[in-house]
Amino acid sequence: MKYSKLFGKTIKEISREETSVNAKLLTRAGFIRKEVAGVYNFLPLGLRALNKIAQIVREEMNKAGGQEVLLSSLQGKENWEKTGRWESFDALFRLASKFEKEYALGPTHEEVLVPLISEFISSYRDLPIYVYQIQNKFRDEARAKAGLLRGREFLMKDLYSFHADEKNMMEYYEKMKKVYINTFNRLGLSAIETRAAGGTFSKFSHEYQVICESGEDQIIYCPGGDYAENVEIIENPEKLENKQCDLGHGSLKRVKVAEVGNIFPLKNKFSEPFNLVYKDKDGKDQFVYMGCYGIGISRVMGVIVEVHHDENGIIWPRSVAPYQAHFLTVNNSRSTINKAEKIYNNLQKSGIDILYDDREVSPGEKFADADLIGIPARLVLSEKTGDKIEWKERNKEKKELLSIEEAEKRLKEEKEL
Amino acid sequence: MKYSKLFGKTIKEISREETSVNAKLLTRAGFIRKEVAGVYNFLPLGLRALNKIAQIVREEMNKAGGQEVLLSSLQGKENWEKTGRWESFDALFRLASKFEKEYALGPTHEEVLVPLISEFISSYRDLPIYVYQIQNKFRDEARAKAGLLRGREFLMKDLYSFHADEKNMMEYYEKMKKVYINTFNRLGLSAIETRAAGGTFSKFSHEYQVICESGEDQIIYCPGGDYAENVEIIENPEKLENKQCDLGHGSLKRVKVAEVGNIFPLKNKFSEPFNLVYKDKDGKDQFVYMGCYGIGISRVMGVIVEVHHDENGIIWPRSVAPYQAHFLTVNNSRSTINKAEKIYNNLQKSGIDILYDDREVSPGEKFADADLIGIPARLVLSEKTGDKIEWKERNKEKKELLSIEEAEKRLKEEKEL
Repeated sequence: MKYSKLFGKTIKEISREETSVNAKLLTRAGFIRKEVAGVYNFLPLGLRALNKIAQIVREEMNKAGGQEVLLSSLQGKENWEKTGRWESFDALFRLASKFEKEYALGPTHEEVLVPLISEFISSYRDLPIYVYQIQNKFRDEARAKAGLLRGREFLMKDLYSFHADEKNMMEYYEKMKKVYINTFNRLGLSAIETRAAGGTFSKFSHEYQVICESGEDQIIYCPGGDYAENVEIIENPEKLENKQCDLGHGSLKRVKVAEVGNIFPLKNKFSEPFNLVYKDKDGKDQFVYMGCYGIGISRVMGVIVEVHHDENGIIWPRSVAPYQAHFLTVNNSRSTINKAEKIYNNLQKSGIDILYDDREVSPGEKFADADLIGIPARLVLSEKTGDKIEWKERNKEKKELLSIEEAEKRLKEEKEL
Repeated sequence: MKYSKLFGKTIKEISREETSVNAKLLTRAGFIRKEVAGVYNFLPLGLRALNKIAQIVREEMNKAGGQEVLLSSLQGKENWEKTGRWESFDALFRLASKFEKEYALGPTHEEVLVPLISEFISSYRDLPIYVYQIQNKFRDEARAKAGLLRGREFLMKDLYSFHADEKNMMEYYEKMKKVYINTFNRLGLSAIETRAAGGTFSKFSHEYQVICESGEDQIIYCPGGDYAENVEIIENPEKLENKQCDLGHGSLKRVKVAEVGNIFPLKNKFSEPFNLVYKDKDGKDQFVYMGCYGIGISRVMGVIVEVHHDENGIIWPRSVAPYQAHFLTVNNSRSTINKAEKIYNNLQKSGIDILYDDREVSPGEKFADADLIGIPARLVLSEKTGDKIEWKERNKEKKELLSIEEAEKRLKEEKEL
C-alpha cells in the first residue's frame, strides 16, 4: 500500500476527550476514529490489525474443536424473559420496532445459542460440542471509557461448550486455560490467569488479566505464577499485599490490570430455563453442562497498544502488525524513487504486505510517522545506503545494511513464522 | 469436517412460517436458523458459504481500488439530524440509551463515513478515494419476508466513492457497472443491469436484478441485453410488455426479479450537509462528488439458492460452496471405513475442504442429504467401486470412476480455479 493513497493518515493533535494511551495513539496513527463515546470506526490500518487478532483467535478456537457460527444481534425478547435477564441484565440495550415486539441488542448470546442448539442435541452421543463466533456485541455501559478498553459496541469472540456432565465440562475448562494463555502469547500479551467471582451457579470463574495502567481491575498476584486473584473476591486485600509467597517466589504484588478474556463454568444455568437435555446411556433425560469462553478482540487491540508503545508511538508485535514492513526513502531524487518503486513492486509480488511511504515530505516526518504507526520493521533507502537497504526494527536501536535480496529473504522467512 | 460432528444437521420438517425456497432449503439443509422474523443465525455450513460470497466481493472491491474499513452500527443522532434522515428514513431503528442521546442503528453509513472522511480530504490531490466495508445493517422493515431476501438484520457490502467532479464520478460509476456484472458472474448469478429511480439529487440509479419468483421487484427487459428498466419508473408498463426490441432481439419481457446490488450517483447529496469540500487547483473550495455501491451479501446467498436448486435440494456454484466435495461410503464395513478415513485424512492434508459423511445411516439417507446440502462434487466409496471412487457432480447425472489419485488431482485443480 502506498501511504499517499491510504485512507487514514497520521495527525498531530487529537481531541482532549481521549485520555487513554490506546485511544490517543491509535487515533493519531490513523487506526481508529471515535463515532460516539465508547464506539469506534476502524480505518484500513485498524481493520488490518483487528483482523489479524481475530484470525489468531479463530485458529486457536478451531484447534480447540470450536465450530464457527454467526449469531444475530437482534434477539427475541421471549428468550431473554425466560432467563430473567430481560430485566436483570444491566447493560442490555432494548430496541423498539414499529412492527414487532422489542428486541434485545445482543450483549452476549446464551439466549440465542442455547435454544438453537437444543434442536441438535438429543443423545449423549451428540456431546461434547463447541461453538463460537467472532461478532459485534452491544452493551449500554454507564461509563464508556479508556478507548477500546470499555466500549458500548465491541468485537468479541465467544465460545460456548456443551457437555454431558460436570467432569467433562471441567476437563475442557482446564484445557481452555492452556489454549487461552497460548492465544494471548501469540497476540504478544502476557496474560495472568486470575481467579475471579463466579455467578449464581458457580463459585468461581477465571479472568485473563494484563498488567496495564489504564486497566479497570486490580489483582494481587505472585510473580512466580502460582497465585492470582481479583481483589474483588479477596476479603482483606490490604493484608495480602506484600505478603510473602508460600512457595518462596517473593512478595505478592497488587497491580492494575485490563481484562482481555474470561472463562466461566456455566453448569446448568442456561440449560435449565431452555430445558436443554440429552438422553444418557440409560435413556434418562439429563441437563447439559455448559461453559463459556470470551475474548475481547477489539479490547485486545487496545491492550496491545497500552503495553507495547514508547514515547514515539505504537510498537506492534509482529503477529498482529497491519503490515510487515514500513518502507521509505530519505531523499526524493528520481533515481532513488525509481529504485524504491521497483523494490516495492517486487515485494508486493512476493506477497509481502508492505506500507510504502511515497510522499514528498521530509525524512524527519517519514521517520516520525513510521515510529508512530509502529510497524515492526522499517526499511530505508537513501543515497547513503547505495544498492543496499537499511533495516531497523521498531523496538531496537540497531540498524543493519542488507542487500535487497537479503531483506526480501528475511521478510519471507518472518512471514512464515 | 466429519458430518457426525457438524453443528447443524439436515432436518425433514420445518416450520410452515418459512414459505420461500431459500429459507426452506437453507433451514432444512442446516445452513441457517431463524431467530425472529427477518433475522437469521448462520450455522457452520451457512457461515462458510456466506464467507465465500463476502470474499469474492472483497477481492473485486480491492481490485477496483477499494480500501476496507469497519464502521460502527451505533451512530450519533446529530449526523442523522444534519441530513434530515433521523426523521425521514422510514426503516431507521432508533435506539435509546440510559446514559447517552439516542443512537441510530446503522441501516447505511453515509452519516458516519462522510463526516469522518472530511478530515482526510483537503485538496484535489486527495481524490478520488474509494472506501468500503462488509458489515451488518439493521432496518425496521414493515414486512420482513422471503428468508434471506428481505431481512431486518443483514450483511451488506457498501462502497462509497469520492471524486473531484461529476465527470470523474461518472467514469467510476461506469467502471463499477462492469465490476458488478463480473462480481455476480463469479457468484454464479446472471444479474441484469436495470435502470431504476434516482433520488432527490439524481435522475437515475442502477439495480442488479436476478430473475427469481420470490423477488419483490418487476422489470421489463430485452433478452438481448440492451434494455432493462424497473417497472416502477415506466409510465405504461402494460404497453411496453411484449413490444419488439428496436435492435431486433425479439419481444421485451416482464419478469419478477430479486435485487442483489445497486449503484447510485449521490453527487453532492451528502457532501453539502457535512460541508465535504476540497481545494481545487485554483485554491477554491468545491464540493466533493460521491457515488455509493451496495451488494447484499446475505441476500445474494438467498438468491443463489432461489436460482440454483432442484426438487432434491440446493446446487451450490463451485465458487461459494461451503465445501469442495461431499464424501461418503455406501457400506460401513471395517475395510471400507478404514479406506475412507485414509482418503479423508489425505485430502484434509492437501488442503481440500471436504465434508465426510461418516454416520452409520443408510446409503439412501446419505445420498438424500448430499443432494439437499448441494456441495458440487459427490465422492462415493463402496465395495463396488473397489480401489476407485465414484465422482458425480451435483448438477449432472454422469458418474465417473476415478482412482484416488485422479480424484485428488481434480480436486486440487478445481481449487486453483
